[in-house]
Amino acid sequence: MKKYLFDSNFLQGNTKNMKTLTERLLFNTSRRRELINITPKICDLVNKSGVKEGLCLVNAMHITASVFINDDESGLHQDFENWLEKLAPHEPLSAYLHNNTGEDNADGHLKRTIMGREVVVAITKAQLDLGPWEQIFYGEFDGKRKKRVLVKIIGE
Amino acid sequence: MKKYLFDSNFLQGNTKNMKTLTERLLFNTSRRRELINITPKICDLVNKSGVKEGLCLVNAMHITASVFINDDESGLHQDFENWLEKLAPHEPLSAYLHNNTGEDNADGHLKRTIMGREVVVAITKAQLDLGPWEQIFYGEFDGKRKKRVLVKIIGE
Amino acid sequence: MKKYLFDSNFLQGNTKNMKTLTERLLFNTSRRRELINITPKICDLVNKSGVKEGLCLVNAMHITASVFINDDESGLHQDFENWLEKLAPHEPLSAYLHNNTGEDNADGHLKRTIMGREVVVAITKAQLDLGPWEQIFYGEFDGKRKKRVLVKIIGE
Repeated sequence: MKKYLFDSNFLQGNTKNMKTLTERLLFNTSRRRELINITPKICDLVNKSGVKEGLCLVNAMHITASVFINDDESGLHQDFENWLEKLAPHEPLSAYLHNNTGEDNADGHLKRTIMGREVVVAITKAQLDLGPWEQIFYGEFDGKRKKRVLVKIIGE
Repeated sequence: MKKYLFDSNFLQGNTKNMKTLTERLLFNTSRRRELINITPKICDLVNKSGVKEGLCLVNAMHITASVFINDDESGLHQDFENWLEKLAPHEPLSAYLHNNTGEDNADGHLKRTIMGREVVVAITKAQLDLGPWEQIFYGEFDGKRKKRVLVKIIGE
Repeated sequence: MKKYLFDSNFLQGNTKNMKTLTERLLFNTSRRRELINITPKICDLVNKSGVKEGLCLVNAMHITASVFINDDESGLHQDFENWLEKLAPHEPLSAYLHNNTGEDNADGHLKRTIMGREVVVAITKAQLDLGPWEQIFYGEFDGKRKKRVLVKIIGE
């Protein structure tokens, strides 16, 4: 099952010293809430950028989604689901003023706030400089529709 | 009502390839807690910087305040207020050891921790690269006094 | 008591315009949970980098640890401990699926999520551009073993 697609028209800057790369990842999850490991794709983009030393920003472009770093362990992912549902329950919908606008996703705004909008990862010797268990995730909290993640790489 | 003022003595670097801009935004809210949309001001600073491709860091310089990205919808803002007050209530003041120092703002330190200190936003083609509903907010959790936000732009 | 040691083999890049510095800080706390002020060490690294204008990324490389900015006040630190233990209690261990893997640190993953993985701090005029009370902390939530923090500085 293909979970995300990628723009073909990425941007790449290449001056004498500074290089940049900009790319959007597209997601359309089948469930309302889902966690997707995007580390391999971010590694590919670091390679593509040609940056040897720099920073890689990865952020959700939608305010009911998250990009965060944690463990790729299914039990922990279920723990996150249970914990977030306890801290910011989806129902009753009437518990949130935001849902008076016709939305039903107020809890998604709060859940994403706990998990965070973005990560900034170092690039060292042309690779993502991640710890042994660090994996980059897209966290969807109001899915079943198109969402994007922005990847911006700058460095030399 | 003018909610924030800006330093006139900003810093601007401009070498062959890398440009930087540093500026402080000043806030003095009339209420203890307040959310203020600062997106237009950050856009102005990106223009002023002349950076076409780069990163824009926006961070609270005070530890009972936040900079975060979410929706500019008043119902959601009230939901944030209710939710944060539930997760980290202001009272009773005696519930927090920090308040023994003579402060009454321990809850503000915790609320800001949930909302986050900073955002890093990509600059692409000389503009903030924000998703359709992403707006940048200053979140005040212990106001009625002068506070600052730092904006640092680097790129080319 | 020496709480952290530092790699001797750091990396330093120095081209015409962009400079980078990469260094790892090592921690091995005696207690499961501990907060350690690392601001002086980060200041030293900024000096060492020679960067005058830029960004400094400081991130935990382990997913049960945090790097965050807040106040260096012991009462507040105890408030953080009490608050995190309330939001994500260590026990009962059986409350978390992750602990079925043989770990007992599921709560540490959640606590670190609240506190955050990383901070990005501006460097202005060759110094960390911190507010009056901002101090950078390493937050350990599953200690008594070796952990690392990554410091990446880029700028000019």
